[in-house]
Amino acid sequence: MQADIITIGDEILIGQITDTNSAFLGNALNKIGVEVRQIRSVSDNKNAILDAFVTAQNQVDLVVVTGGLGPTKDDITKHTLCEYFDDELQFYPEVMTHIEELFRKYVKAPVNDLNREQAMLPSTCTQLFNPHGTAMGMWMQKENTVFVSLPGVPFEMKHLVNGQVIPRIKETFSLPALVHKTMMTYGLGESIIAEKITEWESALPHHIKLAYLPNLGRVRLRLSAKGTDAVALQKEIDVLFDALYPLIGTHITGFESDEPIELQIGNALVHKGWMLATAESCTGGALASLFTQRAGASAYFKGSVVAYATELKTRLLGVAKEVISKHSVVSEPVALAMAKGVLRQTGADVAVATTGNFGPTKGDADAEIGTVVIAIVTPEIELAETFCFGKHRERNLQKTLNKALELLRQKTV
Amino acid sequence: MQADIITIGDEILIGQITDTNSAFLGNALNKIGVEVRQIRSVSDNKNAILDAFVTAQNQVDLVVVTGGLGPTKDDITKHTLCEYFDDELQFYPEVMTHIEELFRKYVKAPVNDLNREQAMLPSTCTQLFNPHGTAMGMWMQKENTVFVSLPGVPFEMKHLVNGQVIPRIKETFSLPALVHKTMMTYGLGESIIAEKITEWESALPHHIKLAYLPNLGRVRLRLSAKGTDAVALQKEIDVLFDALYPLIGTHITGFESDEPIELQIGNALVHKGWMLATAESCTGGALASLFTQRAGASAYFKGSVVAYATELKTRLLGVAKEVISKHSVVSEPVALAMAKGVLRQTGADVAVATTGNFGPTKGDADAEIGTVVIAIVTPEIELAETFCFGKHRERNLQKTLNKALELLRQKTV
Repeated sequence: MQADIITIGDEILIGQITDTNSAFLGNALNKIGVEVRQIRSVSDNKNAILDAFVTAQNQVDLVVVTGGLGPTKDDITKHTLCEYFDDELQFYPEVMTHIEELFRKYVKAPVNDLNREQAMLPSTCTQLFNPHGTAMGMWMQKENTVFVSLPGVPFEMKHLVNGQVIPRIKETFSLPALVHKTMMTYGLGESIIAEKITEWESALPHHIKLAYLPNLGRVRLRLSAKGTDAVALQKEIDVLFDALYPLIGTHITGFESDEPIELQIGNALVHKGWMLATAESCTGGALASLFTQRAGASAYFKGSVVAYATELKTRLLGVAKEVISKHSVVSEPVALAMAKGVLRQTGADVAVATTGNFGPTKGDADAEIGTVVIAIVTPEIELAETFCFGKHRERNLQKTLNKALELLRQKTV
Repeated sequence: MQADIITIGDEILIGQITDTNSAFLGNALNKIGVEVRQIRSVSDNKNAILDAFVTAQNQVDLVVVTGGLGPTKDDITKHTLCEYFDDELQFYPEVMTHIEELFRKYVKAPVNDLNREQAMLPSTCTQLFNPHGTAMGMWMQKENTVFVSLPGVPFEMKHLVNGQVIPRIKETFSLPALVHKTMMTYGLGESIIAEKITEWESALPHHIKLAYLPNLGRVRLRLSAKGTDAVALQKEIDVLFDALYPLIGTHITGFESDEPIELQIGNALVHKGWMLATAESCTGGALASLFTQRAGASAYFKGSVVAYATELKTRLLGVAKEVISKHSVVSEPVALAMAKGVLRQTGADVAVATTGNFGPTKGDADAEIGTVVIAIVTPEIELAETFCFGKHRERNLQKTLNKALELLRQKTV
């Protein structure tokens, strides 16, 4: 069974916002065995939307549309749906009641005419109730193709998809089995991995596909299998992965069906009863933020000192001034002293410290742009390593985060 | 002049990665007056790619393609281009030399066969040299349509676009003028703004379009004007914006042609000679990270104490235990004491502090899930405010960041 995703909005085409809805939808559909044939983003223009509807209907069983359901003039999805389905808008009193409630609770203003229009939906649609907003979802069918129209606000769209769209798709369609497994590696280039596994890759059966997904030192290898029996497919993929182990060896860092690396580290810390703290200079709080964005982080994350200004490394982390002047602020002795300092200050057991120069200018250090030192201190080991990541600020942050997490994983998991 | 963007890769369709290339390309094309008609993401499948090529060629003057140029088997863009252009791959010795150099410098391994194939390009293409990677860009023409094929790695793609693709488009095509201006507002809903500006909006001339872009408390209003004379269009848009001021008033927080809000704050701090520090509990370093991600942050950002564990609020920020036990850890007195504590510890002039409960569980506080307190202390004022943001962790972080930046802007700019 195939689906198309259509996202509507000029703001996507001019690059003012990144379309994150499609990735969420692609992932959600894929998980239940719906193959996404293509994603298409079109403008807030009736003919462009109609053209996308027609093309999709001729090709797929399901079309998921997001965007263009807001209360303002540029939102034309409902009118276009009516034209396409030869339908008209009808007043839904229960939607109106819900809109009035939302306004009473959150907006603290009376409902205006524009929001009143959000209680108008195509007369033949099945309403998908949206408890979190004023734009309802809609489920409509034309010949053999189902059209689902959802609000573009990611948060509201996601709730509708998880709560209503996915269950309804499962009821309506008979779905094939689709199984993915992703291996994460660190430290080998894409082509080097490809060479190591040439034979293995050539022997893959036709219904199993391999993809390489490189990202700054990390390469993910994804196998996708399609068939009728999910259990059999999973077994098949597991066997194939077992054969990969000896080929890639210690460069394997985990599987995507497992937790992401921050959570792997978090779980290992909880298991060992260790609390984590970070002492950050060049990463400026981004490492702490990675951990604290996950629910439950307080079980293993204590806190962080972001000593961005050089003097704060002394003032907040107790790094001796002489160490800084002797070795420079971007140096292994300073990184180690920062890690030990944050352990002392917070009472944590494990610390990761970063100091470096991401560019574009040299800052307080003599180090070349792109030089980064990462230190890790645990009850078992202490280490500091120097890296040269290159000249690009944004990339240097991501590379430092990837490397710090990878080192931390090696020393804790 | 119209363009299509085509991004190639199964990983996009199954939602394993978010396609950020399209937004970058949309923005870059839009800026020079190229109208993006649609964005299409298709799978690593020859027929899907060929179909996208044919459809695009019939509709637009320019097709920008990213992805599928890697060294591995799932990368088939070059072969598909050859089929579409009735061309064949040819060995480019200068590309080979460059690949060998990259391997010597960064991979520290000999070039393998897979990478050797990256020196093969269609014989009729104009090569777009990629200094940062092993996959070159290609510029090809079929009848009146130009096809540009670029690597999918965002960093490499961006450099090729800025350095080579955009200048070449400007040389090749005669471009219309396209001018955008975006007003940022905070604190009014989309429909309330729409009601306030109904008359103004109805009077917009046909060649000027308005879009509403809502995001958790912020609404951006974007005007786009198209014509022949960029200077005249800019003047027209400026006059229209002037008429908006009295209608929206103090809810206007800036313009997108200006700097983003972190930079507005940064510039104001530099101007006043104030240094900033953050004391973060619920935001866990994300505020510090927002500031330090920008080059030049060291001119106004000193550092941060992330006191995630309750005890660290006392230990690192000197918040009295009695204040915490009397008022609870999520309270205005605690937030104020955190802000003052970080000023004392870092010697900064301005502090923002956050303490709250993002959910999903209650944690150390009595406060309802979604309760957040933000405190700001400057040499001129001190304030603490309590907010109820709702039950959703991810959303609560973004709302808190938006609100903290907005308060900081109000008190510094």
